Amino acid sequence: MSSSSSVTPILKDELDIVIPTIRNLDFLEQWRPFFQPYHLIIIQDGDPAKVIKVPQGFDYELYNRNDINRILGPKASCISFKDSACRCFGFAISKKKYIFTIDDDCFVAKDPSGKEIDALQQHIKNLLTPSTPFFFNTLYDPYREGADFVRGYPFSLREGVPTAVSHGLWLNIPDYDAPTQLVKPLERNTRYVDAVMTIPKGTLFPMCGMNLAFNRDLIGPALYFGLMGDGQPIGRYDDMWAGWCAKVISDHLGLGVKTGLPYLWHSKASNPFVNLKKEYKGIFWQEELIPFFQSVSLPKECTTPQKCYIELSKKVKAKLGLVDDYFNKLADAMVTWIEVWDELNSSEEKTLALPNGSEK
Amino acid sequence: MSSSSSVTPILKDELDIVIPTIRNLDFLEQWRPFFQPYHLIIIQDGDPAKVIKVPQGFDYELYNRNDINRILGPKASCISFKDSACRCFGFAISKKKYIFTIDDDCFVAKDPSGKEIDALQQHIKNLLTPSTPFFFNTLYDPYREGADFVRGYPFSLREGVPTAVSHGLWLNIPDYDAPTQLVKPLERNTRYVDAVMTIPKGTLFPMCGMNLAFNRDLIGPALYFGLMGDGQPIGRYDDMWAGWCAKVISDHLGLGVKTGLPYLWHSKASNPFVNLKKEYKGIFWQEELIPFFQSVSLPKECTTPQKCYIELSKKVKAKLGLVDDYFNKLADAMVTWIEVWDELNSSEEKTLALPNGSEK
Repeated sequence: MSSSSSVTPILKDELDIVIPTIRNLDFLEQWRPFFQPYHLIIIQDGDPAKVIKVPQGFDYELYNRNDINRILGPKASCISFKDSACRCFGFAISKKKYIFTIDDDCFVAKDPSGKEIDALQQHIKNLLTPSTPFFFNTLYDPYREGADFVRGYPFSLREGVPTAVSHGLWLNIPDYDAPTQLVKPLERNTRYVDAVMTIPKGTLFPMCGMNLAFNRDLIGPALYFGLMGDGQPIGRYDDMWAGWCAKVISDHLGLGVKTGLPYLWHSKASNPFVNLKKEYKGIFWQEELIPFFQSVSLPKECTTPQKCYIELSKKVKAKLGLVDDYFNKLADAMVTWIEVWDELNSSEEKTLALPNGSEK
Repeated sequence: MSSSSSVTPILKDELDIVIPTIRNLDFLEQWRPFFQPYHLIIIQDGDPAKVIKVPQGFDYELYNRNDINRILGPKASCISFKDSACRCFGFAISKKKYIFTIDDDCFVAKDPSGKEIDALQQHIKNLLTPSTPFFFNTLYDPYREGADFVRGYPFSLREGVPTAVSHGLWLNIPDYDAPTQLVKPLERNTRYVDAVMTIPKGTLFPMCGMNLAFNRDLIGPALYFGLMGDGQPIGRYDDMWAGWCAKVISDHLGLGVKTGLPYLWHSKASNPFVNLKKEYKGIFWQEELIPFFQSVSLPKECTTPQKCYIELSKKVKAKLGLVDDYFNKLADAMVTWIEVWDELNSSEEKTLALPNGSEK
């Protein structure tokens, strides 16, 4: 429909890049031409005494566990430790409209012509053009240059809806679960699929947090990455949890979720034996979670992501609390998370600009 | 999951190629290496006195309007005339398990490496591997070589469901409606998207009849192309109608519908002024049709495509008959179509092999 070139750029002061890490951020060197104009929020996981080196010239703020505990007090309990789920602290502390989050083992991928892919700019395009969740377009994103809505697509649906989430993909190491990693240790994703599409309303998908962008104003409070890692019975379901919550809330609020481009280069498969230990409860809990999320419905009165999320937390407690006591704890943490979000994003707080480019 | 190379080939006697036409079938020369092993059912539209030339060496049967009238008697009224919707007669008269149907202005496309695409073999792969309508896989078709289900995809859903429909796409001339053709006369589809995906349960799509394959045993009776063309107030909605009916029935029966690969080369845009005349009622009726199909639900007792289709015809009459009297006629024709299907496919009839390779 409209060409992608008509998309207004996102300005430097409208987007933060959130990176959870336990190591020096050498991977940023490769991203320098793309990320340097933007502000980084680095969430240091693990030992807070360790010094994380950030390459010269990047504008960033860094939070370690001590910072999180100091800023949130007892409510820091809702932020996971020793798990990349800690990244959601960065979503809450940001003051920007858009977030892009990336893992530190992800590098710049090349398109089939050999050109380096500016993943962030593609996410921005995805977020600034509408989504089409109510009807599938067979030529994929109708707003992309050279494409449009095909014959038979209702005209009343062609304006689309605002896009809340842009989910990008990965070349090289695919995002497989531990059993699939074990069965197919050598499988690499080499297929570049040149498409962006809206995930239809009512359909769930496995949202990976490696290469993800979203509109914080529209959906931010739903992007809670749950209780994972240290002291928890489960790991590697942080992004899945956030994705299922964000999708049902987007569906309820009339927002869109896209998947497809951009690709980045995922360099390193995590250890499948370690992953299996983290995942195994998730693998069977998931069989209950999916029917829960497929059937959950939110009341009309829930008109903000916060209200939706609180309502969802009640349903999690009522239904999933029976599956395992873990979900009672998680439901409580969901409520704490919204309290954290609202505190950090109150209008008062919003005027307190954080110093940029300095470690905290 | 399983590699595509493990797919059993479809034998010559399991698939018919259905081609509606009004002219000599010179386009078959380009398809010779791919189509010659299969049997063709040619539906000659328009003047039955005209002789349609078929290139030497193809195994075919041909039906013109006189044949259709002779075979069906008064029930021939359900088969459209002067519209490519007549192709569905070929679906009913076939005795094979699979149908591939193609327009005569569609040629062999090339993939980005320059290799000619064997569209039929890709459709066969799509039909012989399961679909995944209950949950979206972000790496698209999980059964394709080099792909699988990603982390977070419930294991209980990984067997998938039988595939009923494979919807292929078109390079060069995109399948646009008349208004879009008028606004973008020069737009060409040059984007090769290397993906096949299942259209999720509960999601409708615009099914184009240019490049389409299906499992006749599973969904054939739902692939009725409606009343279009001569004597009807509408055209160019034949495939859309069939697609919406087939999708809600596939969803009800637990069958899958795929879209994406294969591409073919669509050579020639139809006249947008003529198209506008055919489409204009459809363009506003469609705004009522989509909510109808989105909300229609079929009772449990409907366990075959025939039963589903008869039930759907009742709902069309009850709900869409109020939109325009045309839908009352269409609902009656839907019932006649099922009578035609059952007559032509009764066990008796099935044993009456039709002579292959001869004009009828």
